[in-house]
Amino acid sequence: MSGTLHILGVGPGDPELVTLRAARLLGATGTYAFFAKRGRPGHARRIAAAHLNPAAEELRFDYPFTTDLSVEDPRYAEGMGRFYDDCAAAVATRLAAGQDVALLCEGDPFLYGSAMYLFDRLRTTHRVEVTPGITAMAGCWSRAGVPMVHGDDSLSVLPATMPEAELTAALERCDAAVVMKLGRNLPKLRAALSASGRGEGAVYAERGTMADEIILPLAERDDSPAPYFSLVLIPGRRGVR
Amino acid sequence: MSGTLHILGVGPGDPELVTLRAARLLGATGTYAFFAKRGRPGHARRIAAAHLNPAAEELRFDYPFTTDLSVEDPRYAEGMGRFYDDCAAAVATRLAAGQDVALLCEGDPFLYGSAMYLFDRLRTTHRVEVTPGITAMAGCWSRAGVPMVHGDDSLSVLPATMPEAELTAALERCDAAVVMKLGRNLPKLRAALSASGRGEGAVYAERGTMADEIILPLAERDDSPAPYFSLVLIPGRRGVR
Ligand SMILES: C[S@@+](CC[C@H](N)C(=O)[O-])C[C@H]1O[C@@H](n2cnc3c(N)ncnc32)[C@H](O)[C@@H]1O
Ligand SMILES: C[S@@+](CC[C@H](N)C(=O)[O-])C[C@H]1O[C@@H](n2cnc3c(N)ncnc32)[C@H](O)[C@@H]1O
Repeated sequence: MSGTLHILGVGPGDPELVTLRAARLLGATGTYAFFAKRGRPGHARRIAAAHLNPAAEELRFDYPFTTDLSVEDPRYAEGMGRFYDDCAAAVATRLAAGQDVALLCEGDPFLYGSAMYLFDRLRTTHRVEVTPGITAMAGCWSRAGVPMVHGDDSLSVLPATMPEAELTAALERCDAAVVMKLGRNLPKLRAALSASGRGEGAVYAERGTMADEIILPLAERDDSPAPYFSLVLIPGRRGVR
Repeated sequence: MSGTLHILGVGPGDPELVTLRAARLLGATGTYAFFAKRGRPGHARRIAAAHLNPAAEELRFDYPFTTDLSVEDPRYAEGMGRFYDDCAAAVATRLAAGQDVALLCEGDPFLYGSAMYLFDRLRTTHRVEVTPGITAMAGCWSRAGVPMVHGDDSLSVLPATMPEAELTAALERCDAAVVMKLGRNLPKLRAALSASGRGEGAVYAERGTMADEIILPLAERDDSPAPYFSLVLIPGRRGVR
């Protein structure tokens, strides 16, 4: 009997925002795996810590690049492809031995999650089950007290890496928006918000739902690079008051 | 000491997709409230059932309209406004008596949730805390096994109530998309998907994460009206394989 890969969303940071299902599977699984930046504790690992089976085996997958190559760079795609092949092989070994494996994912696994690449590699040959997680955006808009999407509003989730003109056009067209992957793109985002007339009410959220979260109007945030765990909320507003 | 209103996301249907935080607050709160259609059990109430304090007081808020008036109709906005005023007053009475109240919300409260209207009415005068929930879309894409948003993809959440030309244009522009509020709009959505060239890989999900869920390629779904709990997933695909 071959094992099951459980891909588990563990939410945005607060360990209490793990679902009952994820908590149960975390406690019951003999091996857990997670992605991390070299030298860092691993965000998903830290969120899940309280729920892990202390006797479980740990599989740590260190991302091969410490600097951020563009996803357009062919070396990036090649290197990452090989990396995910190796991760999938390590998981497959445990599954073949009849061992269940829990793969921990910050937020929800299928929204910008690396787990998708292991899912793609293992889904046809192994039993894979996915448990959704609270997304970073939902964690942040709850903590910020920003009702986001009303009535017949649309919601756009946009990476701040988009070219400025595209970002401006997307912000003009949408009702509510969430901008992720901020990094060094705050000046560009601010320009796009101002050009699209969507700057009012924009909220900056950093490390949302964690003990040291920062939430403030984007207008009060300076333009210095944003840390990895940050996003911007642009509330929509239509329908009944 | 006045009480706290806890607005609690309870997820898309599977009671195990409630967070630890929501489960704790459900068990600890002396009054719980929920919205429901007249004569229906109330979806959020059913999801939360196992976690409720059996001694708690129940506040049921029946929506005033049984048919779906357009949100553009002034009678709709007026009637709903009065309805939410009354709901807020009923909650405020308990809070003033020092009682905490849990307001149950399917999915996440700030994504198309009626709870936003009580939040708006009570936030300045009372203590209100929001607990995010697993969204219907995340529940559905996890169950469907459809990795949705990769690399620098964008995600658009669109109501099927949009005019066909707008829907077509939005589908052309976005990477991944989720179409909600399907109702009688499946023929229109199909036309928009075909005109935008985005029909391939589209998945229909009904009652996702519930015991009687239905998940199938949209191409295999007929055009009869979709029940309330249904949506369509259009996966994006960019970046590393
Ligand atoms: C690779 S994506 C992962 C998204 C995650 N799977 C989800 O469901 O939200 C990383 C991005 O998520 C956002 N993020 C994750 N956790 C966050 C948090 N606690 N507060 C603010 N933003 C966060 C940041 O925008 C970051 O660039
Ligand atoms: C008023 S909105 C509520 C959305 C919810 N607050 C969320 O976070 O997903 C209702 C819409 O959610 C979708 N929905 C809710 N639960 C669902 C489920 N279990 N399966 C499929 N769609 C669902 C349907 O598209 C429906 O029209």
